[in-house]
Amino acid sequence: MAPHILQINSQRLNDSLQSTCTSWGAITNSTGMRRLALSEEDKLVRDWLVEECRALGCEVKVDQMGNIFAVRAGSSKDKNQIAMGSHLDTQPAGGRYDGILGVQAALEVLRTLDENNIQTHCPVALIDWTNEEGARFPGAMMASGVWSTESSTNLEACYQIKDIDGTTMREALESTGYLGDTPCSYLENPLEAYFELHIEQGPKLEATHNKIGVVNAVQAMKWYSIRVSGVEGHSGTTPMDQRSDALVTAAKLIACVNDTAKNTGLGVATVGVISSDTQSQATIPSGVDFIIDIRCSTDSMVSELCKSIFHNFDCLIQKENNNTSYTISRTWGLPESVFHEDCIAAVRSAAIEQVGADKIMNMKSGAGHDAAWTSKVVKSSMIFVPSKDGISHNPAEYTSPEDCALGAQVLLQAVLRYDQGIREGDVS
Amino acid sequence: MAPHILQINSQRLNDSLQSTCTSWGAITNSTGMRRLALSEEDKLVRDWLVEECRALGCEVKVDQMGNIFAVRAGSSKDKNQIAMGSHLDTQPAGGRYDGILGVQAALEVLRTLDENNIQTHCPVALIDWTNEEGARFPGAMMASGVWSTESSTNLEACYQIKDIDGTTMREALESTGYLGDTPCSYLENPLEAYFELHIEQGPKLEATHNKIGVVNAVQAMKWYSIRVSGVEGHSGTTPMDQRSDALVTAAKLIACVNDTAKNTGLGVATVGVISSDTQSQATIPSGVDFIIDIRCSTDSMVSELCKSIFHNFDCLIQKENNNTSYTISRTWGLPESVFHEDCIAAVRSAAIEQVGADKIMNMKSGAGHDAAWTSKVVKSSMIFVPSKDGISHNPAEYTSPEDCALGAQVLLQAVLRYDQGIREGDVS
Repeated sequence: MAPHILQINSQRLNDSLQSTCTSWGAITNSTGMRRLALSEEDKLVRDWLVEECRALGCEVKVDQMGNIFAVRAGSSKDKNQIAMGSHLDTQPAGGRYDGILGVQAALEVLRTLDENNIQTHCPVALIDWTNEEGARFPGAMMASGVWSTESSTNLEACYQIKDIDGTTMREALESTGYLGDTPCSYLENPLEAYFELHIEQGPKLEATHNKIGVVNAVQAMKWYSIRVSGVEGHSGTTPMDQRSDALVTAAKLIACVNDTAKNTGLGVATVGVISSDTQSQATIPSGVDFIIDIRCSTDSMVSELCKSIFHNFDCLIQKENNNTSYTISRTWGLPESVFHEDCIAAVRSAAIEQVGADKIMNMKSGAGHDAAWTSKVVKSSMIFVPSKDGISHNPAEYTSPEDCALGAQVLLQAVLRYDQGIREGDVS
Repeated sequence: MAPHILQINSQRLNDSLQSTCTSWGAITNSTGMRRLALSEEDKLVRDWLVEECRALGCEVKVDQMGNIFAVRAGSSKDKNQIAMGSHLDTQPAGGRYDGILGVQAALEVLRTLDENNIQTHCPVALIDWTNEEGARFPGAMMASGVWSTESSTNLEACYQIKDIDGTTMREALESTGYLGDTPCSYLENPLEAYFELHIEQGPKLEATHNKIGVVNAVQAMKWYSIRVSGVEGHSGTTPMDQRSDALVTAAKLIACVNDTAKNTGLGVATVGVISSDTQSQATIPSGVDFIIDIRCSTDSMVSELCKSIFHNFDCLIQKENNNTSYTISRTWGLPESVFHEDCIAAVRSAAIEQVGADKIMNMKSGAGHDAAWTSKVVKSSMIFVPSKDGISHNPAEYTSPEDCALGAQVLLQAVLRYDQGIREGDVS
């Protein structure tokens, strides 16, 4: 059978995705998911994944950050793996497709290769990246970030990150059995190329009636953790002009983040997390924490927007003049990522063959993905499929079984085309 | 011994207050307290209190809201109790004096009457009111409120109120053993009069070098629980002009609460509690709850300030025009309370005798107290002692042992003067 007429099994893909979501992390009476990284639900779906991959004859490696690499051997002995992957963790109230589709589609590709006895040139691997959402352990795309950077200090720093209950990443890896010994490093555990299928999480494909997004870049992002400090006091006895109310200041700063992003038009800025030390209606709050998420097309636009926001913060604090102050307690980010033309080309030709040139769209990702990290150190690209109403990070997130299958089919064909390119020496 | 020269034991009062705070609810490495209503710490200090009162020969009754009434018999058989009380629960990070001093001073009065074999005309009672802070079960002065109103629907409603972990008030009363059978009603369990010693929780006594506040009223208050609704979305893929960000709207409303109180000068308004449904940095928040606490000298000023705040809310929502909205999900409040001249006179003469007329200050309370509720249905008044730097609802809350003792001595003498007035027919 010629590789290009291989077909993934659309029913099997959907059954596999839906049944594992229902079993591990489904929100009651909803199609929503709550499968936080390294939670019991995440552990169980990982155990299932490992078993399925082993049943297909794959060698399964777990690295120091819990990333799972399931490798199907190729005919060449000196080539690295062509990998497909994404993540199985979700937001606290997320959907069934963000991340999960990418891993399930990769598994469906492995199953299709296996049942058709396809011998690829390069080994082909499935990857489940740990804590992509950063919803439990703050810091999105955490484990692909560690894999994609040279410094080993990153690994130690991530191990110490705590969830809201005080459990460290390292403790969670240990207790779930996913603290592996494969080095979490692109140098010591290298890939040939990386393809990631993902839902768009935005409205563009649906609005333009396109079926496949050929993703060429991921926008730049930066996060700031902000701490506002004031002075606690009694709500009934402290005159308005003698207050240092941390929540009032935080509220004005949060409004300022939004207004600055709107007014400059440089990109998007969001405060998704807020918490106040004081939780009593009769007490003036003394300390408030919040996180700002800033995203623009380029690194320099991110810098410019950040500069504007913090300039406006300083003006506001000076104007308020109420003895409240703010500090930036933590910063992290993801530089602008440009995907590799070799991978983009493999996706584009697979997509055109599948849906026709008039149903594909070249696009940039607004959301961060593990592929943004891998693209720093290995040829990478992504495939998008439509998100109903552009909704994501929400139980209402939905992509039809047909669109999921189309995405998986494009993933299979992109991998085979890339592999063929290497075999034939077209791709180096 | 003539009653007016009776002296409370200042050392015993301080030892009793400090040792019970240290044992039950002390915040580690701090003089702060965390003794939430009907918590394990609250149960243990209640058990201790009941035992101490019984040891003094008092009859102890527990009512349907867990209020403890410890009654020392008087010579008259047909008179109701002259009560002294306050509360033993605290804010999540409160101090050792707010509420606690009032109960400990009442106990010290009972101990002083007992050791001097004083026979009062009326029975004299100590009361520990349940959940005054409203910090665990929302609704401050909850149990004195139930006692002071005729409707029994209040009781059932309070039983259903849940803490943050979902435990109802009724379950907490049951599990601590404080779901009593004495009716929680001023009609079925009546008092003759009610005196409450409390720390000022504000800066006025200290600033004017006065020692005793003779409190003639409590300002009016109203609370509103607000729910802001928006639409969840991905922080990276949702354009700024297509967002319905509940947190941005909530932030602007919170700033508006503060600015409206400042600009109108009608009173004080505070948002002490905020929580967002969404707790992910990459998600636009879809729902935010917060509570507004509004306090003014009179009921009509509270109404006027509330009207201004909600008018400004509506203008703001209209101006934002981003498909977010707000609803008032719960309201409660405490009307302005004016204390009774008979009780105020007893406090004033006791205070003048103790510290001289130039060291007392007639004042209104900015904070709510159980006495505000009792004053609706029984002659009541309060005694204030200085708060260091006006700080309260904070571990740094402090009143010197000397000032605590002065307050307790005035409480003792006010009760005895009031009792004498009844015996002699001066007070009816």
